Formats: sequence, C-alpha cells, structure tokens
Amino acid sequence: MPPLRVGVMGCGYWGPNLVRNFARHPEVKVEAVCDRELKRAERTGAEYRVPTVTDRPEKLFADRSLDLVVVATPTATHYDLTRAALESGKHALVMKPLTSSGEQAEELAALAAKRGVLLAVDHTFVFTGAVRKMKELVSSGALGELYYFDSVRVNLGLFQSDINVIWDLAPHDISILDYLVGGEPEEILAVGVAHGQSPTENIAYITIRYPNSFLAHVHVNWLAPAKVRQLILGGSRKMVVYDDVQPSEKVKVYDKGVSFQNGGDGDDPYKFMVSYRAGDMVAPQLDAKEALAVEVENIVRAVRGKEPLVADGAAGVRVVRLLEAAQRSIAEGGAPLRLAQPAWSRL
Amino acid sequence: MPPLRVGVMGCGYWGPNLVRNFARHPEVKVEAVCDRELKRAERTGAEYRVPTVTDRPEKLFADRSLDLVVVATPTATHYDLTRAALESGKHALVMKPLTSSGEQAEELAALAAKRGVLLAVDHTFVFTGAVRKMKELVSSGALGELYYFDSVRVNLGLFQSDINVIWDLAPHDISILDYLVGGEPEEILAVGVAHGQSPTENIAYITIRYPNSFLAHVHVNWLAPAKVRQLILGGSRKMVVYDDVQPSEKVKVYDKGVSFQNGGDGDDPYKFMVSYRAGDMVAPQLDAKEALAVEVENIVRAVRGKEPLVADGAAGVRVVRLLEAAQRSIAEGGAPLRLAQPAWSRL
Amino acid sequence: MPPLRVGVMGCGYWGPNLVRNFARHPEVKVEAVCDRELKRAERTGAEYRVPTVTDRPEKLFADRSLDLVVVATPTATHYDLTRAALESGKHALVMKPLTSSGEQAEELAALAAKRGVLLAVDHTFVFTGAVRKMKELVSSGALGELYYFDSVRVNLGLFQSDINVIWDLAPHDISILDYLVGGEPEEILAVGVAHGQSPTENIAYITIRYPNSFLAHVHVNWLAPAKVRQLILGGSRKMVVYDDVQPSEKVKVYDKGVSFQNGGDGDDPYKFMVSYRAGDMVAPQLDAKEALAVEVENIVRAVRGKEPLVADGAAGVRVVRLLEAAQRSIAEGGAPLRLAQPAWSRL
Amino acid sequence: MPPLRVGVMGCGYWGPNLVRNFARHPEVKVEAVCDRELKRAERTGAEYRVPTVTDRPEKLFADRSLDLVVVATPTATHYDLTRAALESGKHALVMKPLTSSGEQAEELAALAAKRGVLLAVDHTFVFTGAVRKMKELVSSGALGELYYFDSVRVNLGLFQSDINVIWDLAPHDISILDYLVGGEPEEILAVGVAHGQSPTENIAYITIRYPNSFLAHVHVNWLAPAKVRQLILGGSRKMVVYDDVQPSEKVKVYDKGVSFQNGGDGDDPYKFMVSYRAGDMVAPQLDAKEALAVEVENIVRAVRGKEPLVADGAAGVRVVRLLEAAQRSIAEGGAPLRLAQPAWSRL
Repeated sequence: MPPLRVGVMGCGYWGPNLVRNFARHPEVKVEAVCDRELKRAERTGAEYRVPTVTDRPEKLFADRSLDLVVVATPTATHYDLTRAALESGKHALVMKPLTSSGEQAEELAALAAKRGVLLAVDHTFVFTGAVRKMKELVSSGALGELYYFDSVRVNLGLFQSDINVIWDLAPHDISILDYLVGGEPEEILAVGVAHGQSPTENIAYITIRYPNSFLAHVHVNWLAPAKVRQLILGGSRKMVVYDDVQPSEKVKVYDKGVSFQNGGDGDDPYKFMVSYRAGDMVAPQLDAKEALAVEVENIVRAVRGKEPLVADGAAGVRVVRLLEAAQRSIAEGGAPLRLAQPAWSRL
Repeated sequence: MPPLRVGVMGCGYWGPNLVRNFARHPEVKVEAVCDRELKRAERTGAEYRVPTVTDRPEKLFADRSLDLVVVATPTATHYDLTRAALESGKHALVMKPLTSSGEQAEELAALAAKRGVLLAVDHTFVFTGAVRKMKELVSSGALGELYYFDSVRVNLGLFQSDINVIWDLAPHDISILDYLVGGEPEEILAVGVAHGQSPTENIAYITIRYPNSFLAHVHVNWLAPAKVRQLILGGSRKMVVYDDVQPSEKVKVYDKGVSFQNGGDGDDPYKFMVSYRAGDMVAPQLDAKEALAVEVENIVRAVRGKEPLVADGAAGVRVVRLLEAAQRSIAEGGAPLRLAQPAWSRL
Repeated sequence: MPPLRVGVMGCGYWGPNLVRNFARHPEVKVEAVCDRELKRAERTGAEYRVPTVTDRPEKLFADRSLDLVVVATPTATHYDLTRAALESGKHALVMKPLTSSGEQAEELAALAAKRGVLLAVDHTFVFTGAVRKMKELVSSGALGELYYFDSVRVNLGLFQSDINVIWDLAPHDISILDYLVGGEPEEILAVGVAHGQSPTENIAYITIRYPNSFLAHVHVNWLAPAKVRQLILGGSRKMVVYDDVQPSEKVKVYDKGVSFQNGGDGDDPYKFMVSYRAGDMVAPQLDAKEALAVEVENIVRAVRGKEPLVADGAAGVRVVRLLEAAQRSIAEGGAPLRLAQPAWSRL
Repeated sequence: MPPLRVGVMGCGYWGPNLVRNFARHPEVKVEAVCDRELKRAERTGAEYRVPTVTDRPEKLFADRSLDLVVVATPTATHYDLTRAALESGKHALVMKPLTSSGEQAEELAALAAKRGVLLAVDHTFVFTGAVRKMKELVSSGALGELYYFDSVRVNLGLFQSDINVIWDLAPHDISILDYLVGGEPEEILAVGVAHGQSPTENIAYITIRYPNSFLAHVHVNWLAPAKVRQLILGGSRKMVVYDDVQPSEKVKVYDKGVSFQNGGDGDDPYKFMVSYRAGDMVAPQLDAKEALAVEVENIVRAVRGKEPLVADGAAGVRVVRLLEAAQRSIAEGGAPLRLAQPAWSRL
C-alpha cells in the first residue's frame, strides 16, 4: 500500500507537533511543509527531512501527489486555505476552531462531501487517554443519566488581539462536550467581559441547555492567577472529575449519588426521601499515547476507509456554531438564545 | 457594666455553636434557650448551664431582662420571630438568609431602625480570618482595580425540600461578595436545574454585573462528587485565591497580572502591546480565631456603641434581594434582570 | 445486662474525648472522673453528668462498683496508676504509650493476666476507618508479600520537656506498624537530634528490619513547616498510600508493581528482566465512624467476652519496647540493635 | 573570540539534551557526537547538524580542535573516557555520578588540576531556578542556622541491574545537599534492601551527620506507588519546602519556627519556655530558564576564566565519596561510619 502523502501548512507553535506525529506514522510520508515565514518552514523541514519546503501554499494545492493537507495556520485563514485544499481534491485536517463562522464551516463540510474527500478537525483533546476513557464511561452507561458538564479552563493566558478568550480556549471544552455528550443543545447564553485595556473579552461564562435538564457550563479566563483545567461530568450513577493539571490520576470516577423517592404520605407532593450513596473512587489507568498520535492514526485509517473520522467536519461545524452563538449572546448582554434545531440535525 | 443578656431560639445544628460562643464571651450571659423540640433545648441548656430552657418563643419575647435574641431557626420562620423580637425592643441576630423575601427583609431593617435596636445577620464567613484578610487587601488597594469575583461552592450536599441550592449555599458567596466588593450590582442572571426527582434546583450558576466591567459569578451545586470551596478575586495588580478546603494556606495572593499599552502605530486602535507580570505568591498568616467568636465580639461592641455592625440588616437585605433576583432569573429561563438602583442605595 | 461502669482519670486534652465516647455507648455508664486539677474534672463531669467528680485517684480504685478505669494522665504516671487499677481488680484502658519503659509495660501485662482482667491500650489509630481498611487489604493478601512501611509524621509540634519527639509521635506509627504487619522485628536503628536549645530530640528517623527483607521506617519531626501524615505500605501486588491530612480519599490503593524474571542466558545471574505493571488506583470508601467509638465498642465487647481486645497489653508492650530500643540506638549514635526474640514471642 | 568546540560522547537519554543546550549557546559549536550505537549518534547529529558523527571515542580524543568533551555514557565507563579526555588536554563535563569509586574520582580531579583543564560534573539540579533560589536563601542568612535537610525521591522507577537505587537517584539529593549546605559531614549511615528478585537495593535510607547537630536524610525508592520529589530544609528562622512535582510554586518559604528560653527558676535546667512563630508563607517566583542552559553558560564562562565552575571535580568527588560510604554502611548492616576529614578538606 502506498504511503499517505501529507503536506503541512503553518510551522508556528502547533504545526511542528503535527509534522512530528505524521512523520512517525509508518504509513505516512510528510512531503511538504509551508509557512509564510520561510525560515520556520525550513527549520521544521530540516528536523523531519521533508523534501519540499516552501512559503507558497499554492505549491501544495498544485502538488497532485499529496493526499492530505494539514491547515495549522491562524484561524482567520482556515476557510480560504481549506477550501483551496478541498477543491484541489485533497483531504484536509484543520486546526480548531474549523473557521471563524458557522456559515463558512458548513460550506467547507458541504464541499468536502461533494468532492468525496475527508474533512478532519484537530479537536486534539478528544484523542487524549482521559477523554477517551470518559467517553467509554458515558457509552457503557456507567455514569447513568447525564446531569451536567462543568468545565473550567483558566490561567494567565496569552492575550490575543484578533480573537477573544472564547475562540481561544472554549473550542477545547465545547469539542469535548460535543464528543462526550452528543445530542442537540437547545439554548445557549454567555456573558463575557474585557478588562483593563484589553480589546477583546478575557473572561467568559457559557451556559448550554440540553433536553432532559442536562446542563453544560464553561468558564474560560485569560486572567486567572493559577492554571485550572478541570471538568466534572455528573451522572445519576457516577460522577467523573478530569483534572488535566495533575501529573497523574487525571480522571477520577466517583461512585457517588443521590436517589429520590416520594415520601410516605401521598398528599404532599413536596415531601420526598433522599438517599445518598458514597462508594469507592477509582482513578483508571489511562492510555498514555500522545493524543496527536491517536488522531493521526484515526485519520490514516479513515482515509483507508477502515473507520470513520472521530472529529469530522460536522463536529467542526457544531463547535463553531456554539462558539458563534455564545459570541452573539455576549453581544446581546447575556440573553438566552434558542439554537436552531433543523440546521443542527442536518449534519 | 452589666452583661449582655442573650436568648437563643433554635438548638438544631447551628444554634449550639452560637450558644457556645456567646457563653464564652466575658461580657455576655446566655439566659435562655428555646427549641420547638424541648429535648434539644434541654441538651444545649445543660451543656452551657443556661437558666431558662423552653419550647415557647413567647417566653423570650416577654422576658424584659433579655437584650438580644438570636434567631437560629429555619429560614421560613425568620420573619415572624425576628419581628416579634424587634417589637419587644430587643436586638436581634438572625441566621442567613435574613428572610425568604426582599420585602420582608426590608421591613425588618426598617423596624429595627424605628425601634432603635440592632439587627445583625449571621453572615459567618465575613468574620473568618481568610475573608477579613481579603477585605484588608481590597481596602488597601493592594489588588488594584477589581476585575472579577468567581466563587465555586459545590459538594454532595444535603438536599432540602423547602429551599433550593441557591438559598442554601449562595448566601455565603453573596455575603462575601457584598462585604468585599460593596458597590451596586447592575444586573443579574442565573440558570438553575433540578435533576432526578429533586423538587428544587440542585445546581445553579449566577452571574452579577457591576459598573466598570466588574463581574461576579457563583457556582453552587449539591450534586458534585468532591467538595470545592474556592473563590478567586482578580484585580489589576494582584489576584487572590481563597480555598477553604485546604487545611492551611487558605488564602494565596498572586503578584500576577497583565498590562496593556496601545501599539506604536496610532492608526490601528486594535493594535496593543501586552506585558505580563509574575512575581512571588504569598500565603499570609491568617487570624485563626473562630469566626463566630469574632462575630459575637462585633455584636457586643456594636450594642455597646463602640463600633458599627459588620453584617447589619442592610447587608441582610442586599443579600436576600440578590438571591431573590437570581431566583426570578432562573424562573425566566436565565434572562438578565436589571437591579433597581434606588431601592438599593436607599439602605 | 448491667452496664459497664467506667471511671476516667485525667481530664486534660484527651480524657474528655474518652468520656464522651464511653458516655455515648448504650451499655456503659461513666461513674467517675478524676483530675489532679479538680476544676478540669468538674468541667468534664458537668458536661457528661458524671456522678462522682474527684481529684483523688484512690477514690476510683476503692470504688468496688467500677469495672474499668481509664488512665488518661501523663505517661510518667501510667505505671503507678495502672498497677493500682489492676490490683484493685479492675480492667484498665491506658493511653499510649503504655508506660515509659518496657519492663514496666511487661509487668503490667503480666499483672493483668494474673488478675484475670483486661489491659487495653489506646492505640487510637488502629481503630480508624483508614487503618482498618489497610488491615483488611493486608489480611486478604491483596497487597501480596509486604515489602516496606514508610511513615512520615511531621509538623510544627508542641515541644515537650519531659519526652522527646519519638515518645510523643512515634507511638502512633509503631502501633499502626505492629497492627498491620505483626511479625517479629529483628533489628532497629535510630538517629535523633535536638536543635536550638531544645532539651530533647525534636527530629528522629527510626529504621526497623524484619525477616524476609521487610523494612519499616518512621520519620517524626516537631520542627517541620507543614503538617505531613503519610504512610506508604508497599507490597508485591499492590501499594497503599494513607494520607491522613487529606479531607477525603485518605487511603489510595495502587495496582502497581514490578516483577523480575531471570534473563534468558542462565550463565549470568545478574541479568534479569523486569516487567512493570500500572493499573487503576482505587480510593476505597472508609468507615467514617469515630475511632474512639470503635475502640470503646471493642473494649465493651472484650469485657463481655465476645471478642478479643484489638490493642491489648501485649501490643502495648511491643510498642514500648520498640520505642525504648529506638531511644537506646539514638543514645548509641545510631548503632543497629538486635531485638531480643524470645522476650518478644513470649507475649 | 573563537567558539568553544564541543564533542559529546553518549547519545542515549541524556546526551541529546546536552547537545541541544550546547548547540543553542551562541559561543559554542558542537563539532562531534559519538555513540557506541552509531545510529543513535547519527540521529542526534542530524537534528543538530553536527559535522562529525562517529562510534569511536578515540576520534574525539585525537581531534585537536575540540576544547571540551562531554561524557554522557553509563557510569561504569566514566573513568576511562574522562581520563582519556583530560589526558588529551581537553576540558571535560561528566554526567553524575562522576565515577563509581571515590578513588577514581579523586584521580580524575587531580589529573585535571595537573593538566590545567576543567573538570565539570553534571549535577543538573544545582542549576535549577528552585535550588538556586534556595542557595540564595541559605547564603543570605534568611534561614538562620541550618537544622536539617530531608529529601524524598521515590517513584516506580526503572530498575537497573548494574547500579542500585542509591547510585541512580541519590546523586541528585547529595549534590543538592553539598551545594546548599557545604561543610564537612562527620558520619554517615545507610540502610538498603532488595525486594522481590531485584539483584540490587531498590529502597534505601541515608542519614548524614554534620557538626552542630545539622542532620541530613535521604530516602530513595524505586518501588513507590506515586512520584515524590520533596526536600525540606529547616533553619532556625525559616524553613523551605521544595516540591519538584508541583507544576508551579515549587519552592515555599515558611516563616515558622520555635525559640527556647530557659525557664524562670534557674535551678531546673530542664525547665524551658518555648515560643512558636508562624508568619506568612512565600512562594518566590523562580527563574524558569532550563537548568542545562544555565549549566552550559557556567561552563562556557568558566572555560573563558570569567567565573568558577559551580559543580567542579571536587564537588563530584564529595558526592561520590558519600555514595560510596553509604554503600559501605549498607553492606555493614547500617553501621554508622566516620567520614575521614582530612581527605575531605584536601579538596
């Protein structure tokens, strides 16, 4: 079987990690790297002995031997570069968030479908051992009925002038939420504030309602004194805490919960009996494989038709739409916004 | 100087702690304890050698020798008992929340003023060494301009059938917020959900906007797998983290922050330069005196006219009003509600 | 069945806790409390409505109605008071350490046996939910062959002029070690140092060797900046960490280990293959019952002949002997001392 | 000024880190890399574009253009390779421990002195921001008189067949101890045990006595369930805890302590008054520069004659001698061994 031939655009912070992981895969050859700053492309190219090094994206689109183009450039450029890649008949892997608007994201997903190529989105966290373990717990029913998802992702972060804290950090939380919980969110509301002379929001709270009282909440903050990366997924049977700052035991599964029964006298509907349950806590051993290596393996297998993409264009669209809706709610002062169901289910 | 003569109503969970702290104060005599269940009053009375033990509140109101009545009964009974105490010319100390409605709270505050007696509210946390240290940092300007207040108070809590998680837990956070930050909140929005067969909300997120972009957020949850009691107060100069679950070093002051300057070229208002600052972290030694002892001392001195009450009726009113507004926003699906300024400033 | 009639000597820090727990037991009546400072006895007596309050121990020994005497006085007085109690035909419960010399401890154990009464020692920790869970894990074989016991008990402690840090803190560790591991230690060595003007050692390290390479080590320190109470029990199959400072998840059971096989070529005995195993970590739910309540229950049942004492005179002797031997090794500059086996096994 | 020309022997785990840090230094050129397995040398050589790649050490010794040889090979080979490097007139940097015997270490130190070249030892930890900050605190007198050094370095480590846990892990602790405290240790004792089929000790406790009651203790363990890297340095004024597992706030300085005064009545020398002090805790901001980069800078400046080596041959000798003495004490069953002072002070 011939190797999968890959070209990578963007050799800034994240691009080289992707090059490294594609380069290590036995069925892949990294054929080209590209960066607007040629020096960065050269450095990455030298380290992984990439044949073609360029500062012109067109060169990659025009190269018929390439199977897959990786778009690891700033968000604002994703749409144009990905469209060009897809139109040249190549599969594409795009960094998160897929685009800066839901409309563009949908267009790309539709284009990929039309061209019969794959559109993958780099929702890195869904490939970590921690999130995969949580997915397993959700899928097996171990958690019971899901109650809430609460994610905190705060630290003294790098302020960015073009995007706010939501577009910077929340794609991680929203993509994990989408992966773990699926389903169709009904409503979103968000509040965000810009402090000091910051031109964009540096702190935001996003609340997303789902059917059956499932509630998701995301707190992102660039101005926090200490790094927190904590997610709680509460269910009727078990509850999971995922603390990504811990060096080990990142995921803890608590056998804790509450059950309600109606009280003895049928007259009073407000009387109820509560019973509490507190059993062992288990920190399962997690697969330590690097998330990007798992992601690359999924993409390679998906291209070979052996399994579906875990983070496909539809997931990318759903995440971008939620970010966009959160942004709109912020602009409207925190007003709750209905999420259009049909558009959602179309994907 | 004759001792301050105190009667305590309610010998359930919290009342005995108050009896103990009043009994220990050298200028106080606990003259009476009262509980609907006489046995509970008897147990507390015996332990602290209280002369009068009764199950009839009227006995306390009628006792002309009593200076102060402590109302440590369920919230629903606060209004009636406190009104009777104030009308009988006694000072009153009422557990949090002061009442279950803002209107009633205002009525009590007005009544106390009219009768010339003190109305104190047991906002216990504002008397802790941790919160007092934070107040000191705010007042001295050490934190700079305040940016945000983020409080998380979650655990596997005792479900209650008459009140929801907001009225149970958030009085703590809101009273700390009111004490530390003061000022006039402009808007509130809250989302809450009841899970399982719970008749009341067991998880809620409250967001409160203040002038000048100061933002407060409170997360309360009865269905969390682990106990979290964490508050972040972010300012332009320093940031404080108060973690009440820690056995020591509960308060940490971070010399961290971000400064913004406009970029060099005046044409682009969106260009800006960010500089980051990260200095030492200091965990100040905290006064270890029991909060209730500090509170009792403040009340005794306030009755003697030596200093103002730290947590007075007006504070009680402000907290109840915010709880009430949060409840209303939940009922309206998370809609942002303006907070009536005049009513607020009247206090 | 008539109640067990108990008299308690010593109403300082620990005595009242014992009174409280005996007073709560349905089959016990606390008949007398005694303290050299009568006021302390009176305070405790009032709180638990104890009929007899005295400052004269003889009164307790002479009271024929008493079944059990609790000795909660300073260590130096244990021997005399306990001997008198036993000689008057009463059961005795003595605080740790049983005595300040092994000889005296043995004498008391022998005396109790001769009189046909029980001699219990307040090795409180062995009655905690945490240590009982660990005992269960050891007994069931879940840990496999035991490899080592490492205990750290340090903090900024109260310096004492009559005893050093070993006699103050190490009885806890040594009694847990004796309870969990049993067996016969072969050798002990200890190093201790007095800093500043301290008249006694304030830091010490004790090492105890057992057969089959099992090694125990205890670090006690009165001059540490932060409180640490951590014990690791390592076995061939699992390893347990008991962190008593944690508010929850005090005991963690790690499914981790190493296996050795001889390498392929039989010639080289130093060649070996190591395989590592890392599975889930489980923090078992622990019985939250107060340790003293469990201890009191054991004593009551032992007096009734329903079960053996968990911490009997023989355990008290073993602990005192190890403390004494550690002290001797310190005096000899850290020299390893053989532990006399016959004396040991006689118990 | 011509660049410092460096050759690196050993491209296993640690060697490439050294190549990277030397390669980044503006005044250094890495001219050669060498590994017994040529493939490893080739991989490292390619990444850093090193001109000479070889599997023959002699090639480096014979290369007159080389100024410095780095010895990053297994410990057993240090002596021969370093001697050859020094004899060929080159400076040498040797991984820790310098050699596997004190005699060899002294020989190398003497040889370097005779040849007029530098012998540096890679005691990496003394170049970390954390340890440098601690050194600053010791040197400035902020800690007062030093009382004890307690270091724990345990985890589920890689068992090695040629060296035991002391030679693997304790060089870190001993080199930090030597750097921070200096002085002349008087006595050492150590206990170590091999568990399972392990051919070498996998757990060991080392105690080192210094004049004036200063006590050092090191616990190293390959069979611990969780990773601990914690060092406490206790002084009369302040105490420092260095926890290397923490992602931030690795060093905490506690303003805690105890003072002793003789009691009022002069007759009783055992009466004393203790006063406790507990002030703020400060976690100073640490220099985040990579330790190896700081080390390389020191070596370059030392070669240029601008500053002395921080970790020189004499430090290497002192560390090896302590390891060797610990090993001997283990062999003698934990017997305390006097450390020969003259030999020590000769350095």
